[in-house]
Amino acid sequence: MTAIDLNADLGEGFGRWRLTDDEQLLSVVTSANVACGFHAGDAATMRRVCELAAERGVTIGAQVSYRDLAGFGRRAMDVPPAELTAEVAYQIGALEVFARAAGARVAYVKPHGALYNRVVHDEEQARAVVDGVLLADASLPVLGLPGSRLLELARKAGLPAVTEAFADRAYTDEGTLVPRGRDGAVVTDADTVVERSVSLARFGAVVAHSGTRIGMRARSLCLHGDTPGAVELARRVREQLVAAGVRVEAFA
Amino acid sequence: MTAIDLNADLGEGFGRWRLTDDEQLLSVVTSANVACGFHAGDAATMRRVCELAAERGVTIGAQVSYRDLAGFGRRAMDVPPAELTAEVAYQIGALEVFARAAGARVAYVKPHGALYNRVVHDEEQARAVVDGVLLADASLPVLGLPGSRLLELARKAGLPAVTEAFADRAYTDEGTLVPRGRDGAVVTDADTVVERSVSLARFGAVVAHSGTRIGMRARSLCLHGDTPGAVELARRVREQLVAAGVRVEAFA
Amino acid sequence: MTAIDLNADLGEGFGRWRLTDDEQLLSVVTSANVACGFHAGDAATMRRVCELAAERGVTIGAQVSYRDLAGFGRRAMDVPPAELTAEVAYQIGALEVFARAAGARVAYVKPHGALYNRVVHDEEQARAVVDGVLLADASLPVLGLPGSRLLELARKAGLPAVTEAFADRAYTDEGTLVPRGRDGAVVTDADTVVERSVSLARFGAVVAHSGTRIGMRARSLCLHGDTPGAVELARRVREQLVAAGVRVEAFA
Amino acid sequence: MTAIDLNADLGEGFGRWRLTDDEQLLSVVTSANVACGFHAGDAATMRRVCELAAERGVTIGAQVSYRDLAGFGRRAMDVPPAELTAEVAYQIGALEVFARAAGARVAYVKPHGALYNRVVHDEEQARAVVDGVLLADASLPVLGLPGSRLLELARKAGLPAVTEAFADRAYTDEGTLVPRGRDGAVVTDADTVVERSVSLARFGAVVAHSGTRIGMRARSLCLHGDTPGAVELARRVREQLVAAGVRVEAFA
Repeated sequence: MTAIDLNADLGEGFGRWRLTDDEQLLSVVTSANVACGFHAGDAATMRRVCELAAERGVTIGAQVSYRDLAGFGRRAMDVPPAELTAEVAYQIGALEVFARAAGARVAYVKPHGALYNRVVHDEEQARAVVDGVLLADASLPVLGLPGSRLLELARKAGLPAVTEAFADRAYTDEGTLVPRGRDGAVVTDADTVVERSVSLARFGAVVAHSGTRIGMRARSLCLHGDTPGAVELARRVREQLVAAGVRVEAFA
Repeated sequence: MTAIDLNADLGEGFGRWRLTDDEQLLSVVTSANVACGFHAGDAATMRRVCELAAERGVTIGAQVSYRDLAGFGRRAMDVPPAELTAEVAYQIGALEVFARAAGARVAYVKPHGALYNRVVHDEEQARAVVDGVLLADASLPVLGLPGSRLLELARKAGLPAVTEAFADRAYTDEGTLVPRGRDGAVVTDADTVVERSVSLARFGAVVAHSGTRIGMRARSLCLHGDTPGAVELARRVREQLVAAGVRVEAFA
Repeated sequence: MTAIDLNADLGEGFGRWRLTDDEQLLSVVTSANVACGFHAGDAATMRRVCELAAERGVTIGAQVSYRDLAGFGRRAMDVPPAELTAEVAYQIGALEVFARAAGARVAYVKPHGALYNRVVHDEEQARAVVDGVLLADASLPVLGLPGSRLLELARKAGLPAVTEAFADRAYTDEGTLVPRGRDGAVVTDADTVVERSVSLARFGAVVAHSGTRIGMRARSLCLHGDTPGAVELARRVREQLVAAGVRVEAFA
Repeated sequence: MTAIDLNADLGEGFGRWRLTDDEQLLSVVTSANVACGFHAGDAATMRRVCELAAERGVTIGAQVSYRDLAGFGRRAMDVPPAELTAEVAYQIGALEVFARAAGARVAYVKPHGALYNRVVHDEEQARAVVDGVLLADASLPVLGLPGSRLLELARKAGLPAVTEAFADRAYTDEGTLVPRGRDGAVVTDADTVVERSVSLARFGAVVAHSGTRIGMRARSLCLHGDTPGAVELARRVREQLVAAGVRVEAFA
């Protein structure tokens, strides 16, 4: 019996602003990527999400980002490595307080937005992120894209490297994501997303954009929670995974 | 033989801007109040100050503040208690990462600027700060003004409450600080500051603004490091304390 | 025939976050209080709101605030007057660019949130706000609470002082607002809000919390746009005002 | 008789932090690139610098930047063009208030730091900056590097494009700057800087890194004010220019 983790971004509001339906998502996912204040996530929200996650047995991860509230961490930035390392560690430490106070701990790290995309290829920034994780806790798993520099360097540094896949994103035959903006880059049909989720979890495979079936082994599926109907879709994905005999459980 | 701690604010730059001469101050003080990013203190600076402090055996404390870079944390703010509690814990957690990576730990908490002044009298905010400390670590000492609500509530909550005095500030006969802006509120003559330091440390007493000698028992003296000549003065204070047979050592 | 202005806060998102339904509100109000980046309102949103407002003939006002994104400008701050004056002018200037580019201009100033409440009584901050307006444009009307220090000082400084009333807030017999948090402070029944709007506009009167009818002369009514049903209610208010023979038009 | 402008970055502190010696620099330069709050420059400082500049007849320019206080605007960012355009206009508008209040006006725009470097080559961002200037004032000169995309697009859009040179930076034979970090990229000898300034102003020529004399026609020289001795050097440059019969005057 296969096991799959379901992760989603949580706590992505800031002060007066709300974005993610944290309460609902926490009843579906097994891993919560909690925003740590740099692209979103005020301290009170971080605390509340950690409490809810701990209550429900959802694993807590640090969703680290560039310092960019105005751009929601979606704008690539040339941050010098030493600064990036320190900022990654800072965010993990800040979240750790709330995780521990809730009786849990930060159990993994996942970069957000533009940083996530950048460390797929950028050796220097990938290394800086890994160094930040090491600084905070040399045993923390890193969650990212299969084949990314980030996971490769994390593995070399002795950190568990955990792969994730996206049921709602199109893949090339080489297993990379079709860039947003291209035709068909995002899979919007709910039934297809559910079906692809099951295929990814059970068979480690998915139909690529070309129609070819490709291998795509991932220990976690990333669900999105910031669009209308997202929570409902996430719930269906989980139900169908269970119905297909997949064990839905956190990797950490 | 009496023991006295010497504390000073450190790491109070931000990005391109520098303020405190961290390197020099760390050769004088026994406790470093490290800025945690809310009024000053970028992550890379926090890391560097923690490394230097650990190297020299200086105790690391979290200098927590209102979120106010533009005002350097010097503007009182009506922050709702739940937010303030979470923000205090957030800052302590962020600093803890760097303290631990340097082989040390956050050993105490001291509020900065307007927050420091507010929790002398404001019950609600004092309680919120104490709650934030408890959330982070229920064994952390709190450093503050003798007679403040902060120390009183910290003590009630089971946290060690540590008092500090200011050799360069005038006191009323009741032992409160003469507000800045009043004539003679700040003692500028270096010899007088040195002499008052020794008197505070050895006899737990100081000459008040009125000329009366009053009792003022404090386990720590706060030194200032952001003015010209400050480091030199701090060094003299330390030398004269030692010469007077006072043991200069951290309280934590 | 009486004239009344309808004002509402607009553009109160920031980056990825949205709050107000700007598009819909701009089809109802006659004056748009546009957030200027200090409590909300990124530059691109400011531009868009100004373009829409200009297109629809809605008057543009600068909704100036404390610098406090994390607290949405709702936390009172002890900002030194010279800083507050400069920050008020800064915000007006920033908005003016977009108003002008849209073929309009900033036609009035209204403080937001905690600053709005503070300048009702705080002489120093009220004067600082007036000075900021004068710095930017010595002919700009200021919108605020009847009887506030702000309007009094604005008037003395030669600025047009425009009063506003709240149909959805309870009033004391003295004409001040019943503080939020007290029982009945907010009027939630839609029919009552509509009725009170008409009464305020036609007769310059409203039933106070005690049941007594009191005079309350205001040139503008403040509508809220950040709650479910708010836009629909605003639309009904406008319709009933028109039906009652009130001319709905901007004051500036 | 040739004319040359001397420009320098001013007002680059933020709140408690100071960087540039504004008072002294304003007695040397003819054009002040005033920081507008995005990489540095709080509102009160902007006001003060504008007042001083106006008093001394120094021309005021908007030094626009990425929104990046933590990185002092020195980290390249992939800001979407529409956001960048709005942010450029926002900064110009904010400064305009203080320039006008001082009896002057914003007379030109110069990008700062990473944005300055990026718009040398990046078509999209260069266009976004030009659009921001057009939005604010379609007659504003843009100050930048000869041969940059920025100046090219500014010119095409009908904006005056003004070139600047750096007496303390090494040039390649092609007239581009030797990147910082390379050997000899920065000219540190004061006499050489003075001599190069005169050569640039009088002959539109400078000795390149290779030793070859190349043409480098610039209407303005950029002086630096944030290093020890910088003001003294700036003063010498000005004196020697005057002694060499060059008219030192603003371009705008």
